[in-house]
Amino acid sequence: MRVSPDFHEAVELIGKRWTGAIVWALSERSHYFAELTHVVPGLSDRLLSRRLRELESEGVVERNVHAGTPPRVSYALTEKGRALRPAIRELRAWAQRWNGTHS
Amino acid sequence: MRVSPDFHEAVELIGKRWTGAIVWALSERSHYFAELTHVVPGLSDRLLSRRLRELESEGVVERNVHAGTPPRVSYALTEKGRALRPAIRELRAWAQRWNGTHS
Repeated sequence: MRVSPDFHEAVELIGKRWTGAIVWALSERSHYFAELTHVVPGLSDRLLSRRLRELESEGVVERNVHAGTPPRVSYALTEKGRALRPAIRELRAWAQRWNGTHS
Repeated sequence: MRVSPDFHEAVELIGKRWTGAIVWALSERSHYFAELTHVVPGLSDRLLSRRLRELESEGVVERNVHAGTPPRVSYALTEKGRALRPAIRELRAWAQRWNGTHS
């Protein structure tokens, strides 16, 4: 049986470097941009922006601009993004159970 | 809250280009090398070998050599690899439900 292209796309989407980490953080609550930079240490602002734009264009993340000086931008999961939670949860459980083991 | 390094590693592991597809195929049954090349079209033998070696070194996949001329090599999930099934299943369900939608 061939691997379904849908599945392949999904796994490549969330597996893209740092994407899983961003979706994990947003699955807890919405975050301002600056907060996300702390949640995901090691990720540059530039790459974080790029990943957020990709997730936005996939319809997984939505961007909200809050009036003010300067305006602040927050990010949240869309309905499609929230639907990823069970998969994230399972991966998290697997990681906790098996991390550091090699058999 | 910071993203757990365990989760980060797990998502980077299965999100590595083609890895999710290989794990998906092996989650159905063990495969000979040549079978895997058909399951995952577009993946070169060289990259498939590399991914299988990585999965082996993570303890997710095991390699079995079958005597014969020439000997044949098959790949199967280990217990750690089989434990990924629920996560794969959730991702698959998500992909089927949401593929092609962007909101």
